Amino acid sequence: MIRTLLVGGAGRMGQALGEGLSALSSVDVVGLVDPHEPARLFSAPHFRSLEDVSVAVDAVVDFSRPDSVVLSADWCASHGAGLVVGTTGLSDEQRSRLERAGESVGVILAANFSLGAVLSERFAAMAAPFFDRVEIVELHHDGKVDAPSGTSLVTARAIREARERAGRVTAPEPTERFTLESARGADAGGGVRIHSVRLPGLVAHQEILFGGPGEGLTIRHDSFDRQSFVQGVALALAHVNDQPGFFSGIDHLIG
Amino acid sequence: MIRTLLVGGAGRMGQALGEGLSALSSVDVVGLVDPHEPARLFSAPHFRSLEDVSVAVDAVVDFSRPDSVVLSADWCASHGAGLVVGTTGLSDEQRSRLERAGESVGVILAANFSLGAVLSERFAAMAAPFFDRVEIVELHHDGKVDAPSGTSLVTARAIREARERAGRVTAPEPTERFTLESARGADAGGGVRIHSVRLPGLVAHQEILFGGPGEGLTIRHDSFDRQSFVQGVALALAHVNDQPGFFSGIDHLIG
Amino acid sequence: MIRTLLVGGAGRMGQALGEGLSALSSVDVVGLVDPHEPARLFSAPHFRSLEDVSVAVDAVVDFSRPDSVVLSADWCASHGAGLVVGTTGLSDEQRSRLERAGESVGVILAANFSLGAVLSERFAAMAAPFFDRVEIVELHHDGKVDAPSGTSLVTARAIREARERAGRVTAPEPTERFTLESARGADAGGGVRIHSVRLPGLVAHQEILFGGPGEGLTIRHDSFDRQSFVQGVALALAHVNDQPGFFSGIDHLIG
Amino acid sequence: MIRTLLVGGAGRMGQALGEGLSALSSVDVVGLVDPHEPARLFSAPHFRSLEDVSVAVDAVVDFSRPDSVVLSADWCASHGAGLVVGTTGLSDEQRSRLERAGESVGVILAANFSLGAVLSERFAAMAAPFFDRVEIVELHHDGKVDAPSGTSLVTARAIREARERAGRVTAPEPTERFTLESARGADAGGGVRIHSVRLPGLVAHQEILFGGPGEGLTIRHDSFDRQSFVQGVALALAHVNDQPGFFSGIDHLIG
Repeated sequence: MIRTLLVGGAGRMGQALGEGLSALSSVDVVGLVDPHEPARLFSAPHFRSLEDVSVAVDAVVDFSRPDSVVLSADWCASHGAGLVVGTTGLSDEQRSRLERAGESVGVILAANFSLGAVLSERFAAMAAPFFDRVEIVELHHDGKVDAPSGTSLVTARAIREARERAGRVTAPEPTERFTLESARGADAGGGVRIHSVRLPGLVAHQEILFGGPGEGLTIRHDSFDRQSFVQGVALALAHVNDQPGFFSGIDHLIG
Repeated sequence: MIRTLLVGGAGRMGQALGEGLSALSSVDVVGLVDPHEPARLFSAPHFRSLEDVSVAVDAVVDFSRPDSVVLSADWCASHGAGLVVGTTGLSDEQRSRLERAGESVGVILAANFSLGAVLSERFAAMAAPFFDRVEIVELHHDGKVDAPSGTSLVTARAIREARERAGRVTAPEPTERFTLESARGADAGGGVRIHSVRLPGLVAHQEILFGGPGEGLTIRHDSFDRQSFVQGVALALAHVNDQPGFFSGIDHLIG
Repeated sequence: MIRTLLVGGAGRMGQALGEGLSALSSVDVVGLVDPHEPARLFSAPHFRSLEDVSVAVDAVVDFSRPDSVVLSADWCASHGAGLVVGTTGLSDEQRSRLERAGESVGVILAANFSLGAVLSERFAAMAAPFFDRVEIVELHHDGKVDAPSGTSLVTARAIREARERAGRVTAPEPTERFTLESARGADAGGGVRIHSVRLPGLVAHQEILFGGPGEGLTIRHDSFDRQSFVQGVALALAHVNDQPGFFSGIDHLIG
Repeated sequence: MIRTLLVGGAGRMGQALGEGLSALSSVDVVGLVDPHEPARLFSAPHFRSLEDVSVAVDAVVDFSRPDSVVLSADWCASHGAGLVVGTTGLSDEQRSRLERAGESVGVILAANFSLGAVLSERFAAMAAPFFDRVEIVELHHDGKVDAPSGTSLVTARAIREARERAGRVTAPEPTERFTLESARGADAGGGVRIHSVRLPGLVAHQEILFGGPGEGLTIRHDSFDRQSFVQGVALALAHVNDQPGFFSGIDHLIG
């Protein structure tokens, strides 16, 4: 069991991580670090700051704010603990601090810890060279104000690059006549199209549809709630102490 | 069993109808009418023209050309046989000839005999007043050169009208920021959006997605091959002799 | 706006109803009745019991325990307020008390207020006479310990009855050889088969798949969270004062 | 362009291969070998037997009967041409003849040339170690008399083996109470369940559903018609002359 410290443990994300990680047999939550009192403690002690930590720690998980993350990086480097970070929006300087910590301990920084999302993207890149055409349909709740989703853009780029590496010529666009404009969705380059559906009730879903002569291959990922990143964090924890180094993303951990 | 004559029986459509209808226990194919020799006869005699028909006939099915359809209409009116027509592109005058035949016999003219398509549209109109938002994803083979599909436009209109009848206020469009243009598909009016996917391998598919608080309702129709209209033609045949009259569509036959 | 009183307003269900109903423009939550202090009040006063209620009320919503529901029924009858009940497990005597209240006011008792579920069942019954075969795939989270789901059994019965009413002969079971037992799922009678999928991450989902020559028609319902019953409760509130009477289910309200 | 000879070119499979392969820019169909006259020639000459072949050949494709396949193997070995075989039901002796040809030329024997099917199985094995549970829903036309499908059994085994290699403990079966027997489908071992749906209209479809905390990952493959194996045969042709050797399956060709 990896003795794990949750920095930002009183926040919404920290509490969700506490709930998910403490339920796993591979992780031992040994403390929550937060200036505020956490609503739930998951049988672990609460520390107001990293200086107060009085337990043995193998790894730190920090999904809080960028300024907290750099403090965690320094603490991990000096205590020989691995660091798993899910915070986005780091400045170049803040990222450098994480890379510096990576010289002495393992540091994993990822924007998406959902294993389903990571596998989806991997599969899409693998299938891309073998099909004439591919389109992405991403479906989200109607509170989402941007389109297309960031994930669909990343997926489209992965597909495009895989097709280019394989020297696959993109089939020409077949539609010639439009009764209504924009019906064919967004052109993400390289022949990949993205369609964004927004409906109340939905959470976050993505379908990658490949088509070839007489057959179709569809990869669908559904995120139903915030617990979807727990498995990816656990996977990162299982490997973060394998070696020192700064690693971006968890794709390299899925083999 | 309805004794049925297939006009245009040697064509691609006539042969498909012969194969499908002759397999049903409710229909007896009693003859194929066509100037050309049919490849398959389905155990029925071949007549070069309607004048040559020498068997008792309850109803005529004609999916051939408009000029043939009007001859079928005249023949049906004078022989007391019902008429089921699946031909599109009739002129006003040709349509009048069918309506005139409808004064003495039953005449059913429909653009789409797929029961799944007819039921889908009906269900969409029924669900429309009860959900905040709806979007249509229609998926077709990449040989289709127009977008969105005609069926999706008809479905969108049925939804819009049902919402208006119910006095349902359409929720405002939520997307505010576009990384790529057109990602949200076509605006079919009344808040209904249509997304057109084109991929090799696919045939003809449509999903109508309704979303409300905490739930989604999806109606999906798949047309896998031409046999999809056989059931609708059989339903029309079962009712065409119920009463004289000209009927457009088969929606009224599904109760 | 319907002035609505939430009985059991401090419970998990009452709080969810408060959140959902108070967000609608058609409903005015005028009070929460509960012996316990509600965590959230939705800008409405809290009353410890029905005797304490000091506001004008058009209708009462009660999703709490059977013994509370009968008190609500008495109160509604004497105050001329409609009653919407989502509580299950009522005894015959408790149900009689609701029926008695229905002699003077409108009373609607339903096990499922999800409009998507109610429409799904309606559509399934409508489609059933027109397709040779139908199978149900219901998918739930792996915490569900029974199979098949209650909803799928109700759906299967609705399909069976609709087919019988239409005199539709069920096609004989085609599978003849089993490499593994039980692969074809449960036999719900009348040729309807049910397949129960149990996976972590899922919430509550059901697909009704109809198949006929060359085509398929699928009705899918997804329940993503508890808010899925809010719309149905609002619909019941909109009609509960139309007339006195005891009504079971909300199917008659969808037209 | 690979100069390709179609053995069994007059049969249903040979004609389908001719249609699909002759449309590709990477393949040049240089002859059809068959004792019978082929209905379509795809601009290539017809030879009654391999002895009659009078054109330069890079590779042979044979999807005909086992006794023909061994003759093709001998011919390929003596003419330095690669061999791609899609025939099933070979005896041990017949298979040995293919392996012997593999000593001098490239020989690829596969039961399934659909790239979508091969990729599906690969993806399933890759995802298997990362999810608590997985179930397979396979859907076929109602003419299929066996259940579950052979492909789903192969997929289940691939998943089971991948989980075992990863040391993943299978979660215990959660269902405890059955209203109807068999609802949970077939137990394919290692916690993998298979559900077989049979409906008219369908062709051949398979969904592999993975579930973990808060998320789901689904891999769906649709075979719409026989052309689905053309791409895989083309891939095999592109690599069959890379090196001598006998290869089973085309999985190693997808990287």
